[in-house]
Amino acid sequence: MFCNMQLYPVTSSYGMPVYFSLERAAAPYFGIKVYGVHMNGYIEKHGEKSLWIGKRSDVKQTYPGMLDHLVAGGLPYGISCKENVIKECEEEAGIPRSMSTNATSVGAVSYMDINGFRYKRDVLFCYDLRLPLDFVPNNEDGEVDSFRLIPVPHAANIIRRTDFFKSNCNLVIIDFLFRHGYINPDCNGYLKLLTSLRSGDCS
Amino acid sequence: MFCNMQLYPVTSSYGMPVYFSLERAAAPYFGIKVYGVHMNGYIEKHGEKSLWIGKRSDVKQTYPGMLDHLVAGGLPYGISCKENVIKECEEEAGIPRSMSTNATSVGAVSYMDINGFRYKRDVLFCYDLRLPLDFVPNNEDGEVDSFRLIPVPHAANIIRRTDFFKSNCNLVIIDFLFRHGYINPDCNGYLKLLTSLRSGDCS
Repeated sequence: MFCNMQLYPVTSSYGMPVYFSLERAAAPYFGIKVYGVHMNGYIEKHGEKSLWIGKRSDVKQTYPGMLDHLVAGGLPYGISCKENVIKECEEEAGIPRSMSTNATSVGAVSYMDINGFRYKRDVLFCYDLRLPLDFVPNNEDGEVDSFRLIPVPHAANIIRRTDFFKSNCNLVIIDFLFRHGYINPDCNGYLKLLTSLRSGDCS
Repeated sequence: MFCNMQLYPVTSSYGMPVYFSLERAAAPYFGIKVYGVHMNGYIEKHGEKSLWIGKRSDVKQTYPGMLDHLVAGGLPYGISCKENVIKECEEEAGIPRSMSTNATSVGAVSYMDINGFRYKRDVLFCYDLRLPLDFVPNNEDGEVDSFRLIPVPHAANIIRRTDFFKSNCNLVIIDFLFRHGYINPDCNGYLKLLTSLRSGDCS
């Protein structure tokens, strides 16, 4: 369980002094708030957008076989969000720094989730990266089984009708749907869904 | 004061049954929540974005002479957000329907403000519209004195250092700064500012 040692800083809120560090896998057992970066990688062709979606390896310890963002990762100690995005872009999808520096920060979502003895309290910094049409991602750390390009309305339907996505990815994609006009104020429940994207302690 | 009769629906939350309607100017005296649409009209040239900013007429009853969005307006009874944006685009900036249908809903902000006997509780639906480089807005209802194209970092500085903007416009432009990467997680106070954009009852 602790084979991938990765130390997470424990703070009262983001950017505040660090009390101590803790192995990532242990954080939810103590209800420690952790931070991550999630990136929507997309293309736009004739005004239609599609998202690059990863399928996690079937032998990954957490959420095996589930659908995932093109690039996502926890924010370990001593690295900025932007540098972490660039690093994860390289490792998870073979996106060179020359492209990944164009990743744009677009906001954050937060949630909490109680599951057995685990109390997850996560804040995810969201990024968008528009990729060239001919770019094909290539996983370099063995954590992703395959990538597929999925039209945004199709990805929205997978979220609505299935549990295929790793659950926190749903939030970041729904945030994308809001910012890109796929969910609009004339949809039923618009403000309720919008505010629920920061229903955890977003600090 | 009541020369511009405009009836606002009174509801418990957006999209719910309407209890009764009320003249717009009276709403804050009763603490009634009202809804509006605000549109960031912008251009992009060599990767640099600029916002079209209006200066309100010096003889306008409310906030005379202050800086304002290219297009903004309250949401009266019986019209959808998108139709209201299209209508206001035409009246306030001379943007034809062929362009304004491309306005994209991108979220909402909420705030409350107590000022004398007035208790404002507003929810603003935010829109972005990327305009052609050669488009020049033209006010058709006499409410705007002039328009100016302002580079986004310059607009951000006006918000930071002055009180020139009509105050609720600040929120919608700050939301734009978040979504377009002008404010990023490595800025001090990122999450606090982000969450404050929905500090009113956003329902």
